[in-house]
Amino acid sequence: MTVVAGSLSTRERILRESAALFRRHGYNGTSMQDVAAAVGITKSSLYHHFPKKQALLLEILELTVDRVTPAVRAIAEASLPAAERLRRAVAIHIVEAVRDQDNVACFIEEGRYLDPAYRDDFVAKRDRYEGYFRRILGNGIEAGEFRRHDVRRAALAILGMANSVVRWYRADGPDSPDTIATEFAELAVRSVAADGEGPGAGGAHER
Amino acid sequence: MTVVAGSLSTRERILRESAALFRRHGYNGTSMQDVAAAVGITKSSLYHHFPKKQALLLEILELTVDRVTPAVRAIAEASLPAAERLRRAVAIHIVEAVRDQDNVACFIEEGRYLDPAYRDDFVAKRDRYEGYFRRILGNGIEAGEFRRHDVRRAALAILGMANSVVRWYRADGPDSPDTIATEFAELAVRSVAADGEGPGAGGAHER
Repeated sequence: MTVVAGSLSTRERILRESAALFRRHGYNGTSMQDVAAAVGITKSSLYHHFPKKQALLLEILELTVDRVTPAVRAIAEASLPAAERLRRAVAIHIVEAVRDQDNVACFIEEGRYLDPAYRDDFVAKRDRYEGYFRRILGNGIEAGEFRRHDVRRAALAILGMANSVVRWYRADGPDSPDTIATEFAELAVRSVAADGEGPGAGGAHER
Repeated sequence: MTVVAGSLSTRERILRESAALFRRHGYNGTSMQDVAAAVGITKSSLYHHFPKKQALLLEILELTVDRVTPAVRAIAEASLPAAERLRRAVAIHIVEAVRDQDNVACFIEEGRYLDPAYRDDFVAKRDRYEGYFRRILGNGIEAGEFRRHDVRRAALAILGMANSVVRWYRADGPDSPDTIATEFAELAVRSVAADGEGPGAGGAHER
């Protein structure tokens, strides 16, 4: 993919416009003709890049999860207390989600429209991503930082909370991404912290 | 609406089938023809009940929020510690959401497709519902049960967490509604609890 300074390749513009359309009208409410018109190319040019609308959706979803996975993986593997890793992972998830809002909204809301033939890869990548959250939660239980809990359901709860931001966040709204990320990360850490392991508890945070 | 024992009125069947179709294919991926076919009536009979697809969506959303609002209101106004009220409100929200999964999924995912002319009533009802959660959070801060926090954003976080269940819950899955509701309610209460106000802290829960 060649990016001319200050401009995007046709392929990148297709991906960007289609994510915005999918988010606004839904995957099933957006036609390939709508995408071509938004990009300002012919339908046959669009089909040259993406032979099917499914291929477009799949690429949006995979690029989205590939973009944030390395950062969350690095956090999960860092030599830090689990509470601090969970705090950072939730915060970066939210900051990236609002920065990349159209794509992440597609990831969360439109992924269910992937045909079964495409779904396995997507689900595997999503599961690997969610796995870093489960790993942090499990480490925290082992270390006594977190109370005993079901890490699979807690990861779903915490990611559900974090993902919900893309539904109401507005760049012109009252809440900065950093404020939301910091507060939601705090809620997440406290939701699983062992009794007496709040930020005010001090100590016990070495591993 | 007349309900013959063991059967549903045509209007009720229309609402039920359209919620299932909207959830599965999206509002914009479902035509009035699809709804008529699913119900087994003619398109003109469908239009007799609902002159527009927007009217159908609006009625699903309003019935859904009207169904759960009285119970959550009663909890918010009960003479109980805020932590106990929050626990019950989150739990009933989740139990109702999975019991009424098609409708609640529409409420969460398809409400954004309401035309502006219809949106005000829906947003007002949704805001009133969310207001009961904000009230409980505010009461908990006043009573010293909850740490100081932004109740608007915390209510969004907690409802985001609770709503996410409709995306992954399956009746044939490993998690019972009660298990999910109990665990998520616990996560929610702990996320805002004042230091030393965990369930193990004892006392201090009278008002």
